[in-house]
Amino acid sequence: MEKRIFTLKHQDTSCKARTGEIKLPHGVVQTPAFMPVGTNGTVKGIHHDDVARIGYNLILGNTYHLYLRPGIEVLKTFDGLHNFSHWNGNILTDSGGFQVFSLSQLRRIHEEGVKFQSHIDGSRHIFTPEKVVDIQQVIGSDIAMMLDVCSAPGISWKETLKAMDITHLWAERAIVRRDSLLDLTGRAFRGNLFGIVQGGFYEDLRIKSAQTISSMDFPGIAIGGLSVGESKEDFCRFLALTAENITTTKPRYVMGIGTPDYILEAIENGIDLFDCVLATRTARNGSVFTDDGMLTLSRSFNEFDHGPIQEGCTCRACTEYSLAYMRHMFKCNEMLGGMLATEHNLTYLHNLILRARKAIEENRFASFKKEYLERFYANGGRCVRS
Amino acid sequence: MEKRIFTLKHQDTSCKARTGEIKLPHGVVQTPAFMPVGTNGTVKGIHHDDVARIGYNLILGNTYHLYLRPGIEVLKTFDGLHNFSHWNGNILTDSGGFQVFSLSQLRRIHEEGVKFQSHIDGSRHIFTPEKVVDIQQVIGSDIAMMLDVCSAPGISWKETLKAMDITHLWAERAIVRRDSLLDLTGRAFRGNLFGIVQGGFYEDLRIKSAQTISSMDFPGIAIGGLSVGESKEDFCRFLALTAENITTTKPRYVMGIGTPDYILEAIENGIDLFDCVLATRTARNGSVFTDDGMLTLSRSFNEFDHGPIQEGCTCRACTEYSLAYMRHMFKCNEMLGGMLATEHNLTYLHNLILRARKAIEENRFASFKKEYLERFYANGGRCVRS
Repeated sequence: MEKRIFTLKHQDTSCKARTGEIKLPHGVVQTPAFMPVGTNGTVKGIHHDDVARIGYNLILGNTYHLYLRPGIEVLKTFDGLHNFSHWNGNILTDSGGFQVFSLSQLRRIHEEGVKFQSHIDGSRHIFTPEKVVDIQQVIGSDIAMMLDVCSAPGISWKETLKAMDITHLWAERAIVRRDSLLDLTGRAFRGNLFGIVQGGFYEDLRIKSAQTISSMDFPGIAIGGLSVGESKEDFCRFLALTAENITTTKPRYVMGIGTPDYILEAIENGIDLFDCVLATRTARNGSVFTDDGMLTLSRSFNEFDHGPIQEGCTCRACTEYSLAYMRHMFKCNEMLGGMLATEHNLTYLHNLILRARKAIEENRFASFKKEYLERFYANGGRCVRS
Repeated sequence: MEKRIFTLKHQDTSCKARTGEIKLPHGVVQTPAFMPVGTNGTVKGIHHDDVARIGYNLILGNTYHLYLRPGIEVLKTFDGLHNFSHWNGNILTDSGGFQVFSLSQLRRIHEEGVKFQSHIDGSRHIFTPEKVVDIQQVIGSDIAMMLDVCSAPGISWKETLKAMDITHLWAERAIVRRDSLLDLTGRAFRGNLFGIVQGGFYEDLRIKSAQTISSMDFPGIAIGGLSVGESKEDFCRFLALTAENITTTKPRYVMGIGTPDYILEAIENGIDLFDCVLATRTARNGSVFTDDGMLTLSRSFNEFDHGPIQEGCTCRACTEYSLAYMRHMFKCNEMLGGMLATEHNLTYLHNLILRARKAIEENRFASFKKEYLERFYANGGRCVRS
């Protein structure tokens, strides 16, 4: 019998948005949920305790990075990433497929697996669907992703088909590996293995992949191959199409999105989980979320502003410091600027999700999204202070 | 009548080390005390709340930097640096003299003051003894330093004499300015103006400067012109000589020292206050204090080490993370590495000071220093793990 980890709490009557709960080894996750990215076992610029304090109990780690550094042998001695990184919430790890696609050199995909060279030292490695399950077992991932073939936008139907077929084959092999770990190693798989839908930007392939992955024994489904450089229009079209064709009984995850507009778009399509480095990366560059769009902290109009980044925000940047101070931090390249802006962006997104959940519970998500984005985009997505 | 802010608590019978209290506008400071440096109104890599949590209630800011950025007009609108930077403890600001000496270009010293070009944008500025008092009044410094002429080691007796004479002249002008602020501006000077002893590396000039500055109406005395590139032997000799010739009834401050060995040397000579960027700067480079010397976190022997940086240390790096994780953070250039190492070094120094205070109260500081340094230097000051 399939493992069930998702409970629907409320289905919005105005659109496909929904609230729910995912039961995971390190606690129940309320959805929709944004996941901060902790590539190397740390969310950049913030203590894990502060990530938890904001309200997050599910963060993302990168299998590719953790496999290269600190390496599996180190993580084994800690019985996984939770102990190693002082994080007692849940961890989702990606499969490494996307990083092999985007970071490493000399990538060669065979049916057996993918050969690649480390972006750090050029050393040669191979990921197979089985090995990626094993690595995530060592990491102790609460949600583990199957190895997939992530294809770039613009490639032919035939190439996309081939990538999809290998992905489906690897999905089966990942499930077999997961189910045989107890016999092979004496320890059952600790996490929840999610399948990944591919199919590029071809409708027939997307539908086929969505249906194929949905039909397999995965407790959750991810939509891969989006947010890889395509137009927003294509993103929205293929997100909607894929979402329509995957099961609604499992948690649904779109990989790599993290701006308010993309997040709200995903929620409207009944997506439960999303992650992106953007919230933390732009923060370190001094760009922060507000209800009126993105605000660049180093801009001169902040020089004498005693007000916070965002009125009503509960983060330390907004409750303890002024825009004038935040500007000063970024003008001086002070670490505290990035630390505070990171805390702000993660707090802002968490609070945005809370507002979205409330709107769903009250069957008004569609109008909430519309009103929110009207204000967010009023200045072209750029915050302009008087 | 002279303002008295220092109370002697205990004079060690084994040496000149002493404990005391300095009464300042933002609370009583126990001495000896190390002051973390917050050049731009932030101690690099750590929240001010965490600096306070460690136990510090006196930090240092740099007048030169704060004058250039965010600028006095910004600080005026916040009624000073405390509000601006969310720090409710005490602040000592240096006079800017040392930064003009070390950072700026085209420095020209006249009797009137010192002309210099900003190291940021080349803009031209002048500091006079009066202006530096005024700037620190805007900053709201609890301890303000008079403008002095910091001379390099190796210059002639005659040049050193000239620098000292100007320093003494500027001392008088600073006092006059401080005492006339109420009349000039309607607001009395908020802080405590400290004098600075100069005299370079000439015994007669050092003694003369120590006696001259001691005799003036300053509530505290700083020893300047040390730790400017001289040998440790010269440092110790001129520290001892200067310390012998300044009053013991006022707080005594040596500028620019921050390693355990120099700090203990200063305490043994009856010094109450010291500051240095080294604790926080080396931390960001992955070098941390331990009882066994300095430890470089990225070294390979830490790779599988589950132990803390320093057994018994109360900081988050030591209580929540392993050496293996700290190494991983520095290998990956993760901000959290510098954040945690900064917290460790500041915690370590604060705890070292607490141990020193206890040893003084028990009249055994001289033997405490000897034992501590024997262990600290056992491996040449480098920590070697088995």
